[in-house]
Amino acid sequence: MVKKRNQHLEKGEISHVAAKLFAQKGFVGTSMRDIANALNVSIASVYYYYRNKEDLLYSIIDSIGVELLVALKKAISESDSPSEQLRRMIYYHTLLIKEKGDRIKVYVEEQHNLSNKLGKLIFIQHREIYSFYVDQLRELQKDKVVPCEPLSIAAFAILGTLNWCYRWYNKDGNLSIEEVATRLADLLFYGIMDKERP
Amino acid sequence: MVKKRNQHLEKGEISHVAAKLFAQKGFVGTSMRDIANALNVSIASVYYYYRNKEDLLYSIIDSIGVELLVALKKAISESDSPSEQLRRMIYYHTLLIKEKGDRIKVYVEEQHNLSNKLGKLIFIQHREIYSFYVDQLRELQKDKVVPCEPLSIAAFAILGTLNWCYRWYNKDGNLSIEEVATRLADLLFYGIMDKERP
Repeated sequence: MVKKRNQHLEKGEISHVAAKLFAQKGFVGTSMRDIANALNVSIASVYYYYRNKEDLLYSIIDSIGVELLVALKKAISESDSPSEQLRRMIYYHTLLIKEKGDRIKVYVEEQHNLSNKLGKLIFIQHREIYSFYVDQLRELQKDKVVPCEPLSIAAFAILGTLNWCYRWYNKDGNLSIEEVATRLADLLFYGIMDKERP
Repeated sequence: MVKKRNQHLEKGEISHVAAKLFAQKGFVGTSMRDIANALNVSIASVYYYYRNKEDLLYSIIDSIGVELLVALKKAISESDSPSEQLRRMIYYHTLLIKEKGDRIKVYVEEQHNLSNKLGKLIFIQHREIYSFYVDQLRELQKDKVVPCEPLSIAAFAILGTLNWCYRWYNKDGNLSIEEVATRLADLLFYGIMDKERP
């Protein structure tokens, strides 16, 4: 039997390893024991921080939502121009894929494993993210852009485009995440049929 | 005990009911018995058509890919103009959400439950769908549109936007799926910042 490590275990470390395992093997396919083993700690240490596996799932999904909201607020604070703010929102949202791809995968594919109560909390949070985009599009509309009514469709197109990235973005590929973020912002802003840009 | 029905059971009917249950309760949360009960048939009748639950999951995911490929081929056959062909591809792809939303949800959220062997077959099929879009974008590029290089990013933006629809499209809402399809095509074609269209 492998000797358990005895150094200090941090809550964030458990969440990080659990997100990785949930992303690889699915929420149902991962046990609390798997998580403890991957951390080389006792299962009791995991239960000390998280009451159960659902609690851990909730904290992973909640944390990516919190980080995204922080990123969106940062984007807005960095400019006074509504279109530049939106561009930065898209940019920072995309950047999360690189380091937090596991959590986004878990959010998309494992959210249905949450009970109604926790699922509703996540729903409220994601409604807030959606509203950030819709409100920003409303600002743009004052400049007579965003011809797509209702704005909800444009907001969902942005969310779909960005939340889908975890399925295809390859960290080891030719494009840096910053390049992908810039190109996705261009594409969402000007579309496929743009003949003007170089 | 409820009397089991004795009329003819069709394979497509099992797949339809299973997709609905997988979408509601998740693949892992649904048993072959649940599927048999929902159909009011014996569990043996389900096993007569499908060797196991994974076989059923594969057939559901495979079927939505096949239908999408049929729709994309139809779109291309209906016009000689590359941009009109792409518009129709987006349009027909979106239309699948209304009737096949359960299958798309299962494809996105439950695909990881397939074994490597079946997962690879689905990967090949979805690579084919992706290639349809990339090839079409290459056709457009001849007209100096699609400024976004590599074309893969534009293709993944289209796939993300459309495959995300199952999460938000409300059949009972104000917009018909045909209106949503038209607006998504406009948005992907001309972007958020288009000031020209009415």
